[in-house]
Amino acid sequence: MNNKIRLGILGGGGDSLIGVLHRVASSMYDQFQIVGGVFNPIWEDNIGFVEKIGLPTNRVYIDFDTLIEEELKLPEEERMQVVSILTPNFLHFPMAKKLLENGFNVICEKPMTTSYEEAKILESTLQKSNAVFAVTYTYTGYPMIRQMREMIANGDIGRVQKIDAQYYQGWINPIIHDSEKRANTWRLDPEKGGISCCIGDIGTHAFDMIEYVTQLQVNNVLADLNYVYSDNKMDVDGTVLIRCTNDVKGVIRTSQIATGEENNFSVQIYGEKAGLKWEQENPNYLYLLEDGEPLRVLKPGHVYNSELSLGGTKLPPGHPEGIFDSMGNIYKGVAKAIRKEPYDHGEFPTMSDGVRGMRFIEKVVESHANGNIWTKI
Amino acid sequence: MNNKIRLGILGGGGDSLIGVLHRVASSMYDQFQIVGGVFNPIWEDNIGFVEKIGLPTNRVYIDFDTLIEEELKLPEEERMQVVSILTPNFLHFPMAKKLLENGFNVICEKPMTTSYEEAKILESTLQKSNAVFAVTYTYTGYPMIRQMREMIANGDIGRVQKIDAQYYQGWINPIIHDSEKRANTWRLDPEKGGISCCIGDIGTHAFDMIEYVTQLQVNNVLADLNYVYSDNKMDVDGTVLIRCTNDVKGVIRTSQIATGEENNFSVQIYGEKAGLKWEQENPNYLYLLEDGEPLRVLKPGHVYNSELSLGGTKLPPGHPEGIFDSMGNIYKGVAKAIRKEPYDHGEFPTMSDGVRGMRFIEKVVESHANGNIWTKI
Amino acid sequence: MNNKIRLGILGGGGDSLIGVLHRVASSMYDQFQIVGGVFNPIWEDNIGFVEKIGLPTNRVYIDFDTLIEEELKLPEEERMQVVSILTPNFLHFPMAKKLLENGFNVICEKPMTTSYEEAKILESTLQKSNAVFAVTYTYTGYPMIRQMREMIANGDIGRVQKIDAQYYQGWINPIIHDSEKRANTWRLDPEKGGISCCIGDIGTHAFDMIEYVTQLQVNNVLADLNYVYSDNKMDVDGTVLIRCTNDVKGVIRTSQIATGEENNFSVQIYGEKAGLKWEQENPNYLYLLEDGEPLRVLKPGHVYNSELSLGGTKLPPGHPEGIFDSMGNIYKGVAKAIRKEPYDHGEFPTMSDGVRGMRFIEKVVESHANGNIWTKI
Amino acid sequence: MNNKIRLGILGGGGDSLIGVLHRVASSMYDQFQIVGGVFNPIWEDNIGFVEKIGLPTNRVYIDFDTLIEEELKLPEEERMQVVSILTPNFLHFPMAKKLLENGFNVICEKPMTTSYEEAKILESTLQKSNAVFAVTYTYTGYPMIRQMREMIANGDIGRVQKIDAQYYQGWINPIIHDSEKRANTWRLDPEKGGISCCIGDIGTHAFDMIEYVTQLQVNNVLADLNYVYSDNKMDVDGTVLIRCTNDVKGVIRTSQIATGEENNFSVQIYGEKAGLKWEQENPNYLYLLEDGEPLRVLKPGHVYNSELSLGGTKLPPGHPEGIFDSMGNIYKGVAKAIRKEPYDHGEFPTMSDGVRGMRFIEKVVESHANGNIWTKI
Repeated sequence: MNNKIRLGILGGGGDSLIGVLHRVASSMYDQFQIVGGVFNPIWEDNIGFVEKIGLPTNRVYIDFDTLIEEELKLPEEERMQVVSILTPNFLHFPMAKKLLENGFNVICEKPMTTSYEEAKILESTLQKSNAVFAVTYTYTGYPMIRQMREMIANGDIGRVQKIDAQYYQGWINPIIHDSEKRANTWRLDPEKGGISCCIGDIGTHAFDMIEYVTQLQVNNVLADLNYVYSDNKMDVDGTVLIRCTNDVKGVIRTSQIATGEENNFSVQIYGEKAGLKWEQENPNYLYLLEDGEPLRVLKPGHVYNSELSLGGTKLPPGHPEGIFDSMGNIYKGVAKAIRKEPYDHGEFPTMSDGVRGMRFIEKVVESHANGNIWTKI
Repeated sequence: MNNKIRLGILGGGGDSLIGVLHRVASSMYDQFQIVGGVFNPIWEDNIGFVEKIGLPTNRVYIDFDTLIEEELKLPEEERMQVVSILTPNFLHFPMAKKLLENGFNVICEKPMTTSYEEAKILESTLQKSNAVFAVTYTYTGYPMIRQMREMIANGDIGRVQKIDAQYYQGWINPIIHDSEKRANTWRLDPEKGGISCCIGDIGTHAFDMIEYVTQLQVNNVLADLNYVYSDNKMDVDGTVLIRCTNDVKGVIRTSQIATGEENNFSVQIYGEKAGLKWEQENPNYLYLLEDGEPLRVLKPGHVYNSELSLGGTKLPPGHPEGIFDSMGNIYKGVAKAIRKEPYDHGEFPTMSDGVRGMRFIEKVVESHANGNIWTKI
Repeated sequence: MNNKIRLGILGGGGDSLIGVLHRVASSMYDQFQIVGGVFNPIWEDNIGFVEKIGLPTNRVYIDFDTLIEEELKLPEEERMQVVSILTPNFLHFPMAKKLLENGFNVICEKPMTTSYEEAKILESTLQKSNAVFAVTYTYTGYPMIRQMREMIANGDIGRVQKIDAQYYQGWINPIIHDSEKRANTWRLDPEKGGISCCIGDIGTHAFDMIEYVTQLQVNNVLADLNYVYSDNKMDVDGTVLIRCTNDVKGVIRTSQIATGEENNFSVQIYGEKAGLKWEQENPNYLYLLEDGEPLRVLKPGHVYNSELSLGGTKLPPGHPEGIFDSMGNIYKGVAKAIRKEPYDHGEFPTMSDGVRGMRFIEKVVESHANGNIWTKI
Repeated sequence: MNNKIRLGILGGGGDSLIGVLHRVASSMYDQFQIVGGVFNPIWEDNIGFVEKIGLPTNRVYIDFDTLIEEELKLPEEERMQVVSILTPNFLHFPMAKKLLENGFNVICEKPMTTSYEEAKILESTLQKSNAVFAVTYTYTGYPMIRQMREMIANGDIGRVQKIDAQYYQGWINPIIHDSEKRANTWRLDPEKGGISCCIGDIGTHAFDMIEYVTQLQVNNVLADLNYVYSDNKMDVDGTVLIRCTNDVKGVIRTSQIATGEENNFSVQIYGEKAGLKWEQENPNYLYLLEDGEPLRVLKPGHVYNSELSLGGTKLPPGHPEGIFDSMGNIYKGVAKAIRKEPYDHGEFPTMSDGVRGMRFIEKVVESHANGNIWTKI
């Protein structure tokens, strides 16, 4: 019998990027098997999507309530063990609550709820259950972030004395300066997005990251938010002074009007003995700064990394984890060819590329053996 | 009926990294379903591995010949459509040949064969078949490499006039200087590895990359290989002067004794109008150099990229593709928790992290609304 | 007749780095000639230093008041035209004031005075004079900072909407945690250093830089300083929220306890159309970020730069300005050799290096001409 | 009596960049005083230049032979001690020879001569004299290059086993593809430039650098040069395989058709224990690569550097040496103001910048002291 964990998914159908991300992630360590879910509120799109991605259709449900009802009818050893919630933000709370009440484990996209009140309720629901509940603050999964946490816990930088996290994006810039667009973006509508845009969306990542790597708590904040226009109800930029455990001071800087920035999330932690820096756009580098010592650049997969970090590395040093995607793209091209769909020769290397490679090796060795002379391929 | 492509796998069991890479890659675009294979020559390991990774066991075969025999008995619509060969190098040729002769599509790890002679035979076998055959020169799958190919094809850098590719590693350094180790490493044994170590293993990547991005052919080589010790039979370093189509000159530099280098593969192509540079360890950056213009740094997922490049990007700009792994690590932690295995709190964000995030948002907005004052969390 | 500007110097003797910096800078465009000064309060050190650096000794004075007195006796066409003040901070004000009152132009190190009150007095003194007065906020002299200023003035990034400047150092870290050291460092003594250490020393650079590049004024501040220990009287870290002209928001972040940081000064300015970033430790790069466009990296000396920027570049593109120092080091080695002082062969290239270079050229051309064969040097 | 070394200069007048470089470099450690020379073959330009740069005119000579004749008439303690040769390449040899024969020390720009034959003659002239002779391979003056030499000498990377130097420029690209331009550029005219363009100009730097940092000798070369067009007489690109002392292998790669490259000179040396890398465009970083260790980045001015390296550093860590130029630019602006020439407010910071800085400090401290509240500047 297959011992993979049975996973259900809510949302993430169609062209959803977050859907791709969760499906691939769930397959990565051969631990999960997607057995069903509700991928789209419209039935045709729901079932069509499942057929398109090649999952079995027998446990695709018409809606969330039906999913709960039907799954509970199944014997426990067939029932979904965990459900991932990838739906719009306002649905996170009711879905998570009902899932927990019915004994399902939950993986929930962030923000977990739309208000702190809901979050507290959910927490007490969880306490009454036996379930596992995860919020996907994705960035804490990076091997070098895990290494950072372990090094700080281990005292490698001494007592933390200064914290600085930045999360700068520029995507809302073209929207915010257009009065029509800013009136009609759901992200800027408090009804749909809660009380905050920038802090809610990315400030929380910075906040969580600080607590994750330092294991200190942020106890006190002084915030200066920017709404840019008086008719705009939601912050699109904010600088937050923070006070943490032991009165450690710091700052969280976030923006969605940092024009031209993509996803520039970075964290700098300074201790009495050393400093550590990390940048999300180059996640394989962790910088260790010490007085009077050369800057050290730590990378994933090396013996000097902690177990927690090594457990999150699948490839040898020097292979950026993105190589999965590179190989994935080649498989994608092969799929097109097998399905007799049109494809570009650039989509995967063919036999002739393989033949040329073998000839290259032979001719190179021959050139050398003959005393470094020009040799035809 | 599930319309995923039915994939079989040869090799890649146990702790094989290449196995992980192919399984994840095959799942990435929801195109393939692994239906069986031979993952290990020892039956217990073979079946044990399949159970461990949660695949159905009914089409796990005792050996390669049995796989062919049994699969051919299945109706075509159930039979494996494509088989990935991840076995040791010397098995690539006989397996690929027999698969092609029996009508299977093939995805073959590199080096495709152990000699040019075998490669030519395989090519003629393919010509007699109708099959799709791919060699996994993985690096050509990177979005920015595809962009590079398209830009050169498009004339963006003008006629190519200089080529330089580097592939430097240091891994063999501790082996080569130890006379026992170098006598007992299969990579340095011509019986097992063919006529070349460094050129065969990584030189071919550089060679293929040059032909891929420029669409020129390397026609002539002058090689200077380094065996370091006279009792060593295989090159561990080599510099190859090249002449391509149109008499374009270039150089391929490869090494496995570049001490401390991890997987430092880079390619620089200069044309009459501009130059393009790319480095595998930071694969999301493509550098465009033009006289009298600021250096331009192209990144994946932007509108300025070609269709071929955009087709290989799954996430918005600023998200290094390694984020799949980050999310994958979180799923891995959740799996441990669900299975009641011991895990570290650092392995996935829990409810309490979610609750704190919601409280952070509320208190930040409150601090701002009250005139930028300190506010307790 | 020599038409260089006659320069006097106050302070900067002995091993003073700031002294080296001003002397070299003053020589750089052949505009100034150092004619005298008071380099040290102790006469032996003063005159000894001047002899050591090879300046004429006839206008080295015993103290500042004597300098003024004696210089005023000289005919105007021989008198010092400008005096650089490199003395300890508390002397800046009285010296600058007296110099201005006596008709001298002044170049003054920063901080200009020890209090705002003194600064205002000095300003009114200047208004009554005809003199030129410069404060050496050195960093505004960088070619790419000048380019940044011009691009913003030119509207290249649109209306400025977000400002972020960082100035992180770690040098005070080993001092601050040692109760004796922190009690005895003049930088942490309000009597000697004024009311602020970190903000006074480096915060002002960030402040000046922001006003320099944006030409906006910082009108309002909200500061959170860090003194770390209660017995410490001076800030060693501070985050300052700022409001500028047009209500533009921003933040200035400064620290001397950012352990391991050397002189990490950076400035990021985002406008409605684009963003600009610069880092002092790599001052030749100016980053231009635009939505949907490749990142552009501007460098000094190119035709695309403004006149103001080009006026501050002396060398062709690709030559980091530090090359002056490289050449300076070679001259230093030659000086040792001429003076028959002991020197290392590594200190300057000799004839034999020159001979080998010529032979190399000849043999390379020969190897090529003979059909790419090995050729002895 | 002034104890600076008396320096004469040949060439380097007008807008010559090499002239600026030598003048500034000679002033940098207060060791040299320029006492005269022949800056330009045309007398009006010669004397006019000297007046412009503010040197005494009494020892500016009409030509080189007169310089020798007149200087020899002076008593030894007034005579030029060293002469820098900055004239066109073909004059280096006759000038250096005559200077040496007459007892002058010589600093000679590279290439030292136009042929190996001349170089050998010069060498034997030097042997008969007592003089100091330096060739300005400028790049060997960088602090981190000196550190590299010392570390290799010290055995920090073990026995050298692989050498790779690159010197890529793109400046000749627009010339080489234009038949008129390439026919009329002196650099491509063997009459004026000797037998090689690219190798002669930049290949020699790479060659010298390798010998400088490794202290090995390059004994054997195999070269592949590129002339691009058959009517072009001089190489504009070349790859040279090298063999050094102990049969160490390596490659020198040079180009002037690497379109868009500015002055991309780098050197990578790998030993049995570690590797070292350096890039001229970011000369303050030296990369140390070791198996199983984090990458180390060494920077100038730190205690971990060798004496030879520290002797070439004038400023504290984190100050790129280019800061001299930044300060130099400020002095330049002040000079304009003193001379009542028009200048831009951006050219130097004035009193009002100083006043604002003082006010900023006060208000920041006030904001903090009042409990982190907004405070007007």
